[in-house]
Amino acid sequence: MLTLYYARDTISLATMIALEEVGAAYKTVRIDFARAEQRSPDYLKVNPKGRMPALVTERGILTETPAMLVWVAQQFRRPDLALLDDPFAFAQVQAVNAWLCSSLHINHAHRMRGPRWVDAADQAAIAAMQRHVPLSVGANYDFVESEILKGPWVMGERYTICDPYLFTLAQWLEQDGVDPRRIPRVIDHRHRMSQRPTVKAALAVERGD
Amino acid sequence: MLTLYYARDTISLATMIALEEVGAAYKTVRIDFARAEQRSPDYLKVNPKGRMPALVTERGILTETPAMLVWVAQQFRRPDLALLDDPFAFAQVQAVNAWLCSSLHINHAHRMRGPRWVDAADQAAIAAMQRHVPLSVGANYDFVESEILKGPWVMGERYTICDPYLFTLAQWLEQDGVDPRRIPRVIDHRHRMSQRPTVKAALAVERGD
Repeated sequence: MLTLYYARDTISLATMIALEEVGAAYKTVRIDFARAEQRSPDYLKVNPKGRMPALVTERGILTETPAMLVWVAQQFRRPDLALLDDPFAFAQVQAVNAWLCSSLHINHAHRMRGPRWVDAADQAAIAAMQRHVPLSVGANYDFVESEILKGPWVMGERYTICDPYLFTLAQWLEQDGVDPRRIPRVIDHRHRMSQRPTVKAALAVERGD
Repeated sequence: MLTLYYARDTISLATMIALEEVGAAYKTVRIDFARAEQRSPDYLKVNPKGRMPALVTERGILTETPAMLVWVAQQFRRPDLALLDDPFAFAQVQAVNAWLCSSLHINHAHRMRGPRWVDAADQAAIAAMQRHVPLSVGANYDFVESEILKGPWVMGERYTICDPYLFTLAQWLEQDGVDPRRIPRVIDHRHRMSQRPTVKAALAVERGD
């Protein structure tokens, strides 16, 4: 049985949706950021990086969303979910996810996680980063709208592991100060995702229903 | 024939080393950051993100280092370079590369690319980010030293696509203000990599020899 360590309103939802998609049996352990449990000695034994999520498998512990999403597709014999059988198509899936991980998610993180990049006491610099988030994240969503999202799914006709990744990040775009009216295709994708039974199931798990 | 768009002293070196490793035939097009050629209309047609590198293949254009490195291994039938035949081992390779991409490389980028995350005119905030780089990148290298680098290669006995990625980033650690004496295993890995004929060949290509 797999165990997913997750926290609410974090990127762990993407892996949870993927696990639902393949029908995996998994337990969850909720980590509470309000109590800084991601920095507790117990959790640091699971993931020394102190980040979400972590997936405990029979072979060992996996971290990093782009890696876990591909693992779910490969391990549960759903190569279609990552277009794994076609090196070029798989590289396109991976390029989308690498960009979501290192650009969109990172830019978003500058709103909440400023002390990763400046002294925690430098309130002016932290505020400067927060002010820039609507611009940087907004530009990223413009790029998703015009270049990345082929529709109806990220990769076009085929639903892949890019979809739960984008959907999870898109939960936060209004809080990031991005006007949803300028990215109608992203909003349409978010709505389409929210109607999938697997997504509903993952959201219920995340809420603790 | 493949065409790699690259710039000196950027992460494009990692893909170049991987191409050398598999014996790929490839041309190169050098993009000059000093002339902001990565923002030229011609290059933006290749990669609308304006980032390095981009790899033109017969099927289309690939971007994002983690994606391209796996593509090279898969396309040139060298699954050993990514441990592709073992989903768990492949996920570990991918987790290392995702972390290098979204943590170590991003933290490093705060020294040179501050205007991605704050207003370009806010010199105080840009300086605040630059001051933090030795701490954030230094902590990342401590983590590589103690947790990631198994030795002699990143994944242990087997040379993989994690090695050119770490090697390329490790070119910059002194400039990032990290004392090499505190990370002897990283420095040893960098030296071991620099002795490989494929790495020497890629460095010669990058220099334009």
